[in-house]
Amino acid sequence: MSPLLTDLYQLAMMEAYLDRGQTGTAVFELFMRRLPERRGFLLAAGLEQALEYLENLRFSPEDVAWLASTRRFRPKLLEYLASFRFTGDVHAIPEGTVFFPDEPILRVTAPLPQAQLVESRLINIVHYQSMIASKAARIMLAAPGKMMVDFGFRRAHGAEAGLMAARASYVAGFAGTATVLAEQRFGIPIFGTMAHSFIQAHDDEAAAFEHFALSRPDNLTLLIDTYDTEAAARKVVALAPRVKADGITIRAVRIDSGDLIELSRRVRRILNDGGLSGIAIFASGGMDEDTIAAMMRAGAPIDGFGVGTSLTTSFDAPSLDCAYKLEEYGGLARRKRSAGKVTWPGRKQVWRVSGADGRFAGDLLSLEDDDREPGEPLIVPVMRDGRRLAAPPTLADIRARSANELERLPEPLRRLEPGASYPVRVGERVIKLAAEFDRRLGL
Amino acid sequence: MSPLLTDLYQLAMMEAYLDRGQTGTAVFELFMRRLPERRGFLLAAGLEQALEYLENLRFSPEDVAWLASTRRFRPKLLEYLASFRFTGDVHAIPEGTVFFPDEPILRVTAPLPQAQLVESRLINIVHYQSMIASKAARIMLAAPGKMMVDFGFRRAHGAEAGLMAARASYVAGFAGTATVLAEQRFGIPIFGTMAHSFIQAHDDEAAAFEHFALSRPDNLTLLIDTYDTEAAARKVVALAPRVKADGITIRAVRIDSGDLIELSRRVRRILNDGGLSGIAIFASGGMDEDTIAAMMRAGAPIDGFGVGTSLTTSFDAPSLDCAYKLEEYGGLARRKRSAGKVTWPGRKQVWRVSGADGRFAGDLLSLEDDDREPGEPLIVPVMRDGRRLAAPPTLADIRARSANELERLPEPLRRLEPGASYPVRVGERVIKLAAEFDRRLGL
Repeated sequence: MSPLLTDLYQLAMMEAYLDRGQTGTAVFELFMRRLPERRGFLLAAGLEQALEYLENLRFSPEDVAWLASTRRFRPKLLEYLASFRFTGDVHAIPEGTVFFPDEPILRVTAPLPQAQLVESRLINIVHYQSMIASKAARIMLAAPGKMMVDFGFRRAHGAEAGLMAARASYVAGFAGTATVLAEQRFGIPIFGTMAHSFIQAHDDEAAAFEHFALSRPDNLTLLIDTYDTEAAARKVVALAPRVKADGITIRAVRIDSGDLIELSRRVRRILNDGGLSGIAIFASGGMDEDTIAAMMRAGAPIDGFGVGTSLTTSFDAPSLDCAYKLEEYGGLARRKRSAGKVTWPGRKQVWRVSGADGRFAGDLLSLEDDDREPGEPLIVPVMRDGRRLAAPPTLADIRARSANELERLPEPLRRLEPGASYPVRVGERVIKLAAEFDRRLGL
Repeated sequence: MSPLLTDLYQLAMMEAYLDRGQTGTAVFELFMRRLPERRGFLLAAGLEQALEYLENLRFSPEDVAWLASTRRFRPKLLEYLASFRFTGDVHAIPEGTVFFPDEPILRVTAPLPQAQLVESRLINIVHYQSMIASKAARIMLAAPGKMMVDFGFRRAHGAEAGLMAARASYVAGFAGTATVLAEQRFGIPIFGTMAHSFIQAHDDEAAAFEHFALSRPDNLTLLIDTYDTEAAARKVVALAPRVKADGITIRAVRIDSGDLIELSRRVRRILNDGGLSGIAIFASGGMDEDTIAAMMRAGAPIDGFGVGTSLTTSFDAPSLDCAYKLEEYGGLARRKRSAGKVTWPGRKQVWRVSGADGRFAGDLLSLEDDDREPGEPLIVPVMRDGRRLAAPPTLADIRARSANELERLPEPLRRLEPGASYPVRVGERVIKLAAEFDRRLGL
């Protein structure tokens, strides 16, 4: 990825920092200012890609030459960029961890120009995956035990969004994705059926089913809503014994439109009456956690869901109020005081206390060097001097963590309308440090 | 970009098509089924990237080896992919053209397996840029004559979204972007000021301003809302004559938080009273077309806007109901009849009629081989046998087209709450073809 995928002002500020030798250690923390309206919690994801970005961040000779050609920068900055390496430390909340507003999920401790440069892309990476993992977690909670598959590449916002949505939803518990590259790149299981165009390309729907069954007999799923869903279900009943003779089993049917509660019942009946109670019903088409929950409440006989656009765009909350703010420079705590955007200064730690039932009971935002507080500390070192401290956790590990975290959510936060907020207390020393800072600035 | 950025079912269907020799010419059209609630029109963008994708689509030996290693596919498909080239034709509405639901903006005419494979990524490319261009057009219409800059890379959904949002908003009339790569890649003007962290990294705000002015004197813009906006404006007044002695002119101040209507008035007064009526006021921070329109109605003295998240995520409508559907195969028209998703069959043309005032008056959806209808035909050939018919238009040309199109929009559609819909009539032969298709299928 090009290092020029950043905001112009980062390079401008770097130049000014270098002019004055402002290369001391800066501490930036990445956190969310508030939750979107219908979110009770967020799920961290994207740390792995953030660390990869920091490890590999280089300006090629061509990049530097191009920057020089714009006549916007002086040799000092260009030379600095030509030999740029990220040499800082990173602390973070592990991927798959539940988190709340004001809690830093990533901290960069690095020479000021380095820590400044990486802001734009770090937010770009961590914001998207955390937003999608959080949305996917809601979808998981809407239909416990059902199989969820990401179908949303096409309407995701570009290539990287499509790919990373597959990863983030897998982190949150999805069974897999339709996006082929996600298996090659991350080993995420991929799933696929057939499109309406396949049916349409045949003059006869039954012939299309048979053709597909013979060509693609593994994990065979037939799409039955191109013309008349119930008629198509009867064609499946007629086809099943014929292909069985060839050793082929129809695993599932997919319904992609119409009243899915009613249609799934009718299709279930047609299949059962035809002796095909083993065929699963898979639903897709404009699903989100609300429509899925409604289907579950109605007892619709649906075994799995393909969730597309609502997942990969986080449709009801397509951004989080994510910020990356300077908390310390030159050994002094810093904070921003802009209206509605006040931040807590200093290097922070988050302590999470659980109740007797193992559920999360409340968090405390403390300073990193505070005494040990009750509960578990969430922020751990992951990179030192630009190098990772350990091999990245596997996606299986991250999924296991995420499943455990979702189990331990307080009951109100597991609802689609949370209606309750999770207590995050700001520690006394953090408050004191903020007051000291304000006094120092005469505010 | 990896060719595996597609849905598994595309490869599955390709295998089935190849098994039966279903390699005849297929015609797919990409269109929007309906408008999002608060959109009166859409603006086409992304064709250039779509054509690049088709031209460069190849499976490397490693891709083919990986696909083989999954044991999901047989040699026939793998061999086909190993030598894959897109050899089809493309017709499209030029970028920067206003369009409406049911109007094809891109048509692929190619052997069925090819036309099928490219569905996922073509939608992924054209959907996003058209959505962002449409959002950006609304922002332009909210404040005619004001300078708009894309500030939204960080919360765009990943790398490609951030970059392409810069392109799509520039197509729609934005002055430029903060994203550096957009200038390198597309020649889009870039803009940048300073972040709050720059101010915070200094012990004194006035010293930070002076330092930045001396280091980065060109197009100098100072961010004044880190602590106290009015106090900072007075510091700018104090600084201006000092840096003027060094030949440095402060061009603008940026306010990023607070009540921007009130603050911009107070800051304007402070600057004017200080003899700095030439300094522009630039506003940013959570803007969208509604807040911008409200500032314009209130007569806020703001000269330009940095628009971020609402633009690059198309926050109020983060997806369009975009489809790519088979309209013809084997010389026969095709359509989909799924509930709520019925499509019009055949190769289509869109004719746009303008009124005496030059404004768009109504469109007609005809078949491509219909006689010439009144108005201008919108769909033109852009690629034949996998090769472009002409060099791509420049971004300047596309911007000029877009500006002209927005000028010619009927008045109600220029409002943020359109409250009126644009007439798109479906031609008689299209309706007849649909009826014939239904009869043929016995529907």
